[in-house]
Amino acid sequence: MSTIFSKIIAKEIPARIVHEDELCLAFHDVSPQAPTHVLIIPKKPIASLEQLEQEDAPLLGHLWMTIAKLARELGIAESGYRVVVNCGKDGGQSVDHLHFHILGGRSLAWPPG
Amino acid sequence: MSTIFSKIIAKEIPARIVHEDELCLAFHDVSPQAPTHVLIIPKKPIASLEQLEQEDAPLLGHLWMTIAKLARELGIAESGYRVVVNCGKDGGQSVDHLHFHILGGRSLAWPPG
Repeated sequence: MSTIFSKIIAKEIPARIVHEDELCLAFHDVSPQAPTHVLIIPKKPIASLEQLEQEDAPLLGHLWMTIAKLARELGIAESGYRVVVNCGKDGGQSVDHLHFHILGGRSLAWPPG
Repeated sequence: MSTIFSKIIAKEIPARIVHEDELCLAFHDVSPQAPTHVLIIPKKPIASLEQLEQEDAPLLGHLWMTIAKLARELGIAESGYRVVVNCGKDGGQSVDHLHFHILGGRSLAWPPG
């Protein structure tokens, strides 16, 4: 299934990329909800958390190591940040390709939506 | 460093536990922000995402496999849910022990805080 994110991975659609390696890609959200708002996605087209399989565990581990590293590079590690994943309708998932929102640069309120 | 979560892991403080294995524990949040609001924490006392080390990658993979499994068991997988991690001051982190919020049972709004 082709989504806007698979097109970004294929470089068919431009994005402000901040990180790329063999397993994942990170780029600025086009509708930022905070001064820093970056998305990180696996290159493997996993539709959502619901489609995770046991074999994806190392990929998830890599994504979270990369999130922590990216937060430092983006300058929000010290001030703090929030990471959000939406799954399905109630979660507000808008693209059917697993993606993690990294938000920082302002104080994030509670509840988280 | 002892937090309320390490006391819950040690069963020194009661909690409504929904999952436990050798690596992690999940229990209902005492201040729920949605009809279903569960926290999942590693038993290893990692203070925050900022304290993650490369050796923790498999643990993070396990936590996310468990989150997806728990969402099904909690009955929110089909309707959808949101997973949130707060890191540091701007993220609104309230306990210095890494924890993932799983929220479902209502439509989550955007922005996420």
